[in-house]
Amino acid sequence: MLFTDLYELSMARVYHAEGLEGDAVFELFYRRLPEGRDYVLSCGQAQALQALLDFRVTPEELDWLEGLGRFPRDFLEMLSGLRFTGDVDAIPEGSVVFPLEPVLRVRAPLIQAQLVETLLLNTLHAQSVLASKAARVMQAAGGRPVMDFGARKAHGREGAMNLARAAWVAGAAGTSNVEAGRALDIPVLGTMAHSFVQVYGDEAQAFRAFSHYWPETTLLVDTWDTLNGVDRVIELLRSAGEGPRPATAVRLDSGDLPELSRAARQSLDAAGFPEVKIIASSGLDEYAIRDLVGSGAPIDGFGVGTEWAAVSDAASIDFAYKLAEYNGEPRIKASSNKSTWPGPKQVWRHSEQGRMVGDTVAAADEPAPEGAEPLLQPAIRAGNACTGAFPTLQTVREHAARELAALPETLRSLTPVDTPYPVAISDRLESRKQQLIQAYRGRKSDD
Amino acid sequence: MLFTDLYELSMARVYHAEGLEGDAVFELFYRRLPEGRDYVLSCGQAQALQALLDFRVTPEELDWLEGLGRFPRDFLEMLSGLRFTGDVDAIPEGSVVFPLEPVLRVRAPLIQAQLVETLLLNTLHAQSVLASKAARVMQAAGGRPVMDFGARKAHGREGAMNLARAAWVAGAAGTSNVEAGRALDIPVLGTMAHSFVQVYGDEAQAFRAFSHYWPETTLLVDTWDTLNGVDRVIELLRSAGEGPRPATAVRLDSGDLPELSRAARQSLDAAGFPEVKIIASSGLDEYAIRDLVGSGAPIDGFGVGTEWAAVSDAASIDFAYKLAEYNGEPRIKASSNKSTWPGPKQVWRHSEQGRMVGDTVAAADEPAPEGAEPLLQPAIRAGNACTGAFPTLQTVREHAARELAALPETLRSLTPVDTPYPVAISDRLESRKQQLIQAYRGRKSDD
Repeated sequence: MLFTDLYELSMARVYHAEGLEGDAVFELFYRRLPEGRDYVLSCGQAQALQALLDFRVTPEELDWLEGLGRFPRDFLEMLSGLRFTGDVDAIPEGSVVFPLEPVLRVRAPLIQAQLVETLLLNTLHAQSVLASKAARVMQAAGGRPVMDFGARKAHGREGAMNLARAAWVAGAAGTSNVEAGRALDIPVLGTMAHSFVQVYGDEAQAFRAFSHYWPETTLLVDTWDTLNGVDRVIELLRSAGEGPRPATAVRLDSGDLPELSRAARQSLDAAGFPEVKIIASSGLDEYAIRDLVGSGAPIDGFGVGTEWAAVSDAASIDFAYKLAEYNGEPRIKASSNKSTWPGPKQVWRHSEQGRMVGDTVAAADEPAPEGAEPLLQPAIRAGNACTGAFPTLQTVREHAARELAALPETLRSLTPVDTPYPVAISDRLESRKQQLIQAYRGRKSDD
Repeated sequence: MLFTDLYELSMARVYHAEGLEGDAVFELFYRRLPEGRDYVLSCGQAQALQALLDFRVTPEELDWLEGLGRFPRDFLEMLSGLRFTGDVDAIPEGSVVFPLEPVLRVRAPLIQAQLVETLLLNTLHAQSVLASKAARVMQAAGGRPVMDFGARKAHGREGAMNLARAAWVAGAAGTSNVEAGRALDIPVLGTMAHSFVQVYGDEAQAFRAFSHYWPETTLLVDTWDTLNGVDRVIELLRSAGEGPRPATAVRLDSGDLPELSRAARQSLDAAGFPEVKIIASSGLDEYAIRDLVGSGAPIDGFGVGTEWAAVSDAASIDFAYKLAEYNGEPRIKASSNKSTWPGPKQVWRHSEQGRMVGDTVAAADEPAPEGAEPLLQPAIRAGNACTGAFPTLQTVREHAARELAALPETLRSLTPVDTPYPVAISDRLESRKQQLIQAYRGRKSDD
């Protein structure tokens, strides 16, 4: 498992040589909301936890490390037997999380806790970026089905799998990615490409052929001229006998979608096919879908690709993994704008009538605030998975749906709110932080 | 190999049933430059070609497909024996490419050429996005070394590997990602994290310990107070005896970098350590680096993470994979704003005194324009790799350096130019397109 930053190994070597074997508590959280966003839908916990359970350095990796000539033999021997033996608490996957809230808390011997930083951040970050985008796309679609068509524009094959998974967690109807369908047991969906029509060179003939083998399908109508394509579909519907209908939907993939969808709807209705649906794709994101829905365009479902994969508007979230305690002593970082709070924490969520109204980040040893629910739950103890640490993807999807439904009404819009969701830092946590800062200042002025 | 969109399989099933077994030519290109960009550094060719050579559907995948109940047995049997037997021409990896230029041209039996669309697009797109960003970061740094620190914010582990690879191709000094260093044989680099200082709780002690095991290292000075951290480094340098120097650089990771770097430089110089370098990180991208360099901030090297991985300013490029010919007949797509040119193409590059001055996209059967160089080169013939199709990564890096050096001066700035790099469509190609459009119009008006 060499998916780690070199400096983790450099630090680990010093910890090992110096006998720094105490337990460290690290917390993974994000500092600020991406611009224009009001919440993050957390995702990737299952893979992050599994990676900890699977953590080991292989003999081949050790040979390579040795060949670097950088690390002494006793350190490499220690690495060869290293397993993750610590405890992890995690906010369940598919939960809505806010700034400064630890999504994952690791308590483990220092070297273990340090070496897994890159892996944990990479996993939680990438999937939370995708799930948060997907949640907004689903919100914009207002209940209309949305299909993930993003495999080709995702960051690699793994990125495409993560996208399909995150989109499914956030409520997508399914994915075009067959590998994701197989690996994750989620519905695979899709229609036809322009190349199919181009191969036939004749749209009517192409439609006839496709619907002969795939009746009740969706036909792509914009290869040459969208409304002409719709007319070809109508002819095909009219020529169909008693059997299954040749098509149940048309797909528009270019041009002025509000105008074209209205014209297509009119043609289909006038021809007596009001039940044939209209699906749209073509560079859509949550903003475009919101505008289409808002304009009353008669579109029944959406395919979203590039923007779902690329997340241009919030391609990263400033997740960090920070030391909160070493050997029982609280720790902070005081760099400008990047300071942290000391000690292990718990996140408490306050709700009223099924809606979340505010969270409190408190020291883990504080008593529960009245009526609040603790978000961090035991996931790994002494290196073993806790019961319930790996819910099915279906369960995660249902949890995410409940979480998104429980968001305050103002946060369910795509427009960022003026007043962010309230996340309080408990008095005890704040005063412990101030004490620690005073202590560091004292030490500095002694120098 | 089920990393494909479902519709590729749906179309393939029709092609198979209908006996459409002719050769298809597909071309992979991008339509428009991302906003604010003047070129794309193409990357990922090696993996794309390897994926074609490795293409097959496994027995497990076939069982799963059969279980879907969607595909007939004879189609699945055909899939089970399917290999890529076609020809591929590719522009060498690390080349600079412009809109409408085919980066990859596939000629293969229709089903093969269709099924690999998702895979080819995914591979070339993701890595070209990363390499293009990396090229700009390197330009901004103006020769100062830049390290890839992006593993934790990349889209998954594969995304992190792609980032390290693309950054190396574009000229980075190395990567912090140990797995990438091992798999790709590129330098691994890194310093220390704030948590190291936090663990010790005492900065001077932490620095002493780290440099004892890693002399001539870079020390991170901003865990609590940057300039105080610099003073600790100076003390350590002063206390060092005749042995190796404790530190050769300090790293700043927060705060006002121009101001802090000047103050740090002044302290180090005044203390008699003008040779100790200053490295900066902290949310840097090409714009921030340009501004730092422009301000004269005395920074000797940069670590770039989040923005290099996320590519917020151009998270996608509109790459497409379009049919150009079927069974010897040219094909086009005429959708609004997404039209294509017919037939297989070649890209010709015109240079003057070592600088590229314009490209021409021409039909593959046109004679070579005088003095121009053909960019598409044979890569696979009849399913087998051509000699030279897999240059070493070092060769790719050197090629990219030459390409970036040959860019017109105006394109080497981060500011987009008013007059884009000239890409001409040959007269013959344009007139063939118009003929085909007329033919389609004729067919339509006959309806």
